[in-house]
Amino acid sequence: MKIDGEHIQSIWFEPESDEVCIIDQTLLPHSLEIISLQSLEETCHAISAMQVRGAPLIGVTAAYGIYLALRDDPNSLNAAVSALAETRPTAVNLQWALQRMQENLNGLDFSDLPGKALETAQLLEKEDIAVCEAIGEHGLGILQALWNEKNESQDALNLLTHCNAGALATVDWGTALSVVYKAHAAGIPLHVWVDETRPRNQGAALSCWELTQQKIPNTLIVDNAGGHLMQTGKVDLCLVGSDRTTLGGDVYNKIGTYLKALAAHHNNIPFYAALPVSSIDFSIVDGLSSIPIEERDAIEVSHISGITEAGNIESVQLAPDGTAISNLGFDVTPAQFITGIITEKGVFEANEASLQQLLD
Amino acid sequence: MKIDGEHIQSIWFEPESDEVCIIDQTLLPHSLEIISLQSLEETCHAISAMQVRGAPLIGVTAAYGIYLALRDDPNSLNAAVSALAETRPTAVNLQWALQRMQENLNGLDFSDLPGKALETAQLLEKEDIAVCEAIGEHGLGILQALWNEKNESQDALNLLTHCNAGALATVDWGTALSVVYKAHAAGIPLHVWVDETRPRNQGAALSCWELTQQKIPNTLIVDNAGGHLMQTGKVDLCLVGSDRTTLGGDVYNKIGTYLKALAAHHNNIPFYAALPVSSIDFSIVDGLSSIPIEERDAIEVSHISGITEAGNIESVQLAPDGTAISNLGFDVTPAQFITGIITEKGVFEANEASLQQLLD
Repeated sequence: MKIDGEHIQSIWFEPESDEVCIIDQTLLPHSLEIISLQSLEETCHAISAMQVRGAPLIGVTAAYGIYLALRDDPNSLNAAVSALAETRPTAVNLQWALQRMQENLNGLDFSDLPGKALETAQLLEKEDIAVCEAIGEHGLGILQALWNEKNESQDALNLLTHCNAGALATVDWGTALSVVYKAHAAGIPLHVWVDETRPRNQGAALSCWELTQQKIPNTLIVDNAGGHLMQTGKVDLCLVGSDRTTLGGDVYNKIGTYLKALAAHHNNIPFYAALPVSSIDFSIVDGLSSIPIEERDAIEVSHISGITEAGNIESVQLAPDGTAISNLGFDVTPAQFITGIITEKGVFEANEASLQQLLD
Repeated sequence: MKIDGEHIQSIWFEPESDEVCIIDQTLLPHSLEIISLQSLEETCHAISAMQVRGAPLIGVTAAYGIYLALRDDPNSLNAAVSALAETRPTAVNLQWALQRMQENLNGLDFSDLPGKALETAQLLEKEDIAVCEAIGEHGLGILQALWNEKNESQDALNLLTHCNAGALATVDWGTALSVVYKAHAAGIPLHVWVDETRPRNQGAALSCWELTQQKIPNTLIVDNAGGHLMQTGKVDLCLVGSDRTTLGGDVYNKIGTYLKALAAHHNNIPFYAALPVSSIDFSIVDGLSSIPIEERDAIEVSHISGITEAGNIESVQLAPDGTAISNLGFDVTPAQFITGIITEKGVFEANEASLQQLLD
């Protein structure tokens, strides 16, 4: 992605200083700070505190965490895998990346472990970039076809997205937003409605910022607004990411995705999920009965951080002490409401017969 | 309603000091402050700044505003009506209350106007209390029937509400929450999921506070969460207010209501709107094509107010300067997604044939 016109990734390795660099996403959009991860502990903290977030990015970060752990103690592989796995217990990419690391490190001498871990983490990083770019290219065809249909009646294609499935959720490009970037580069005029995405406001804080940095027109809305916009013809297509997708095509994504999919369904608006094949859980068909939902800290709902009039980033309390709060992080959108699943291997229907092809 | 165990209304007249008292709802839930309205200007400000809000309460406040204007200048009726009508241009109750005032003041001598205006405003206040209490009584039957059906399988009836259609939105009792209070008084065990209701967070700030003051168990959720809760069997019935309802049964209410109605529809959960007959617009059948939607200031989305660590109520900026923002205040839920309309005259189906009976 471009930030202030310069190309930058969400995570990268600095060979000279032997450190892993990330953008601290908890400070965006108010402040762009690059922080350095030097240990397993710092990596675990970065994931659990959501300095990095987004399924693909968490996976790559965890891979680098294994390297940092083994660099400090070549005998720490199992402990490092356990510690990283617990940072976001329901993230399927995280488990997938840790498994990839273990497979590649299996049976090596202690002395070879750090080097191989770094090499594998760098491979995962490069793979993620290629996968995300391919997702964008496969999705481009969908937007191109829609634009060919609409360009006589309107000035731009109006998309709606939820949360941040952008470059900031991956190493680069993003998943849902990769499609947007490829369409923008192909000359399709676009405007993106961005759900703020309470409670953590990743839409407001990350997607708007990221889109604006790529010079793509976007408008921030509250999560309540998308239904009305769809009902009144102001959305041509919805595009979201996914943290986990079942073989049956159910999409597990940021809480609130399901409500937007329902509105799209009722207003005949296509609703796509864009995701890497690595996030498909081929062992599960029905998401609603099988996928546990992460319950997060109530403080994400009761408090919110922003800039005070004095210019400081500060957290303010919205709900009084003692308010009972439920904070479920994700929901499951049943396959029947998903028009298609955009992956690096092509676009699939949200059903077992179609997704099964990925296993052939 | 009870606050700290004492009975209080959202608005009342103090005869000794000749002033109108309101709860400043912009400071809730952090601080309970009663403020006094002494002039038309203060009344207009109270409505436009949303120190009072909620369709019925706005109407009664405007009626008192007419009294304050005429007390200061008996020749100011038309100017006062115009000024008050502009404070919330799409609020149907406001127009209704102003019309009631004009009808009652028509043809009187200047010297009689202030007295008659006060008398009429006090009448509207009393009527609103009676209407809201009757709404609660009519809705009670619905909750009682549902509880009779569910009480063997669960500990409490789980309701979901959006925004604040409580005592704070009316003079007393509320509309949707009046039903809750009557059911609670009738001994039905209840638990209410409260949508925080971005952007102004009336659910978090007002409904949770009001329900807790009445000792009714409630849990605050983000607006994104209700779909998942309905999908997983955690909601037995949805209950909202309405700012304007068409003769065809379309419900114009706080933005986001439509999304919850869609989720209720898909999960076979009853979805009721509770409202005074005065808020039904019998001149319109189809809400979506006919009702203008109030577009409010972007600052309601870009900023939010809460308590800082130092204990001050402060507004923080969530989205950077220059972020494009759309802030539509309401949406229209089509009649097909409304199970029933609870009014002070009984429960009606959301269709023209049923609501037409109110005109007979």
